Amino acid sequence: MAKHFAERLLTAIEEKQTPIVVGLDPVYTQLPKQIREIAAHSEGGLPEHAAAVNEFCQVVIDIVAPHVPAVKLQMAYFELCGPAGLEAYHRVADYASEQGLLVIGDIKRADIGSTSEALASAYLDEVYVRDESGQEKAVSIDAVTINPWFGIDGVKPFIQKARANGQGVFVILRSSNPSAGEIQDIVDADGRRVFERLAMLCNEWANLPDCVGESGYSLVGAVVGATYPAEAELLRQVMPNSLFLVPGYGAQGASAEDCAAAFHEDGWGAIVNSSRGIIYAWTRPGYEQFSEESWEEAVEAATLAMKVDIAQALARKVGAAT
Amino acid sequence: MAKHFAERLLTAIEEKQTPIVVGLDPVYTQLPKQIREIAAHSEGGLPEHAAAVNEFCQVVIDIVAPHVPAVKLQMAYFELCGPAGLEAYHRVADYASEQGLLVIGDIKRADIGSTSEALASAYLDEVYVRDESGQEKAVSIDAVTINPWFGIDGVKPFIQKARANGQGVFVILRSSNPSAGEIQDIVDADGRRVFERLAMLCNEWANLPDCVGESGYSLVGAVVGATYPAEAELLRQVMPNSLFLVPGYGAQGASAEDCAAAFHEDGWGAIVNSSRGIIYAWTRPGYEQFSEESWEEAVEAATLAMKVDIAQALARKVGAAT
Repeated sequence: MAKHFAERLLTAIEEKQTPIVVGLDPVYTQLPKQIREIAAHSEGGLPEHAAAVNEFCQVVIDIVAPHVPAVKLQMAYFELCGPAGLEAYHRVADYASEQGLLVIGDIKRADIGSTSEALASAYLDEVYVRDESGQEKAVSIDAVTINPWFGIDGVKPFIQKARANGQGVFVILRSSNPSAGEIQDIVDADGRRVFERLAMLCNEWANLPDCVGESGYSLVGAVVGATYPAEAELLRQVMPNSLFLVPGYGAQGASAEDCAAAFHEDGWGAIVNSSRGIIYAWTRPGYEQFSEESWEEAVEAATLAMKVDIAQALARKVGAAT
Repeated sequence: MAKHFAERLLTAIEEKQTPIVVGLDPVYTQLPKQIREIAAHSEGGLPEHAAAVNEFCQVVIDIVAPHVPAVKLQMAYFELCGPAGLEAYHRVADYASEQGLLVIGDIKRADIGSTSEALASAYLDEVYVRDESGQEKAVSIDAVTINPWFGIDGVKPFIQKARANGQGVFVILRSSNPSAGEIQDIVDADGRRVFERLAMLCNEWANLPDCVGESGYSLVGAVVGATYPAEAELLRQVMPNSLFLVPGYGAQGASAEDCAAAFHEDGWGAIVNSSRGIIYAWTRPGYEQFSEESWEEAVEAATLAMKVDIAQALARKVGAAT
């Protein structure tokens, strides 16, 4: 059996000295033209869009692997390339693992119990995919995101699978988007919001038998948007044993200070994702010195800048607490 | 622009004289051995599991097409076959359309706004897939199911796409599984449950500009589990303009009477899905006279039996109302 997911993630954070995750949201039309040109002439067995997405992600992985502990693959953008996109998703996951990164599949799935079993198997079990040379290879991922709408029936098959394989799950507790509150903020008769009630449930799930590892963290984590820091601070108290995956930094408007709210006072307990702010850095404010030709340098610069920004915010948080 | 989804569905219900939907949940290990044998020797360009799933669904479609207006493809079981499974999903959708059936993709997706745009495009736009002979062909689907957890940001990209293309969406309002209530039944300060609050939002979404067709029904429908008939009756009042997609009949334990709760008093306004109870009928109680060899006859018998059962329950409902 593989080592507990939380231990593997904490070790990787320690090694890379940062809790940041690079989000791979590869939109074909937004890729640098050099990548699209390479893909148009590649012979990796994938149609053009999927080949471009695969190529782009692999180059990004080469750049960020020395600097960060993990990448997150947003499955929707792979699916946008059709069936071959799903093949690219698995190939990219495999490539990232080979480069020593932990890989989170941002699949945001769940269904009624019998169907969630199929989903858990499809996205946590080993999958056989062809590599560039046409060889079949078993590939698996380290963690996935899960939608909580169906309650425990939808989540349990993922937890069971993850527990058996040393993988992790992140339940979407408080999303980062503007209308997140329409459902998630409905207030119950005791003044608690739906996402707080869900957090109490998630904390029970996180403490199911054999879910908490030696580190004190569970394989059941939560997605907590950095765009709502007051909520993140509250959730940090309700779910002490869960690792938080924090989206919303950068392109979605959250600051490093906002992200720090999702961490414990010792500066641990969360990972912060940035997708568009890193992978498309050359198109973003503050990165005007980079052109489409130097997009790779922009990716590295944005990764390092985020690393410093988050480190400083965490140092302030830890300093204030001691 | 294609005709409004609700009108197309109502016409199909009228033609087939039934509001039932056959759910295609093809689990490789549960398929009749004849199908698995055919697939092992097929040359359609798909790996074995995906080929079996494709073959099985096409045979079921041949059997049910004369009797029902629509099929629902549970995407999870296709994904369980890997990238080729997604190709089978599109091929099966295309085959069902060719046989005159409306096709609902049970994808249960949503994400933050920018990502939901990618999902809406991936699953409502035309997709090019290879058919059996290796020819590329544009395929599209009639409707998809959507998860509401992210609020309108996650739903709107689907509504916009569906509105432009004459397609429909079904928001998962009240699921049919045992733990559905953990989140969906949380009670607000005014005594309303979360799913009722969502229904009020969905009703606003259903009445967005150009969403309601000439029939008075909107392209925005809802999934309302038959396993909770009291809730269905309530929701029917809150969302008068929405078509309900009703899972839970048969294998999940709901009766035809329970399903009738999701209909208006005129006997219209909902479609009732059965998946395992029909496609695996030969393995189910009451169908002992059928063997694995005669599984096709069992599929037809179960479809016709459900048609009668639902028709009788609706006749009682309409009779009681007049």
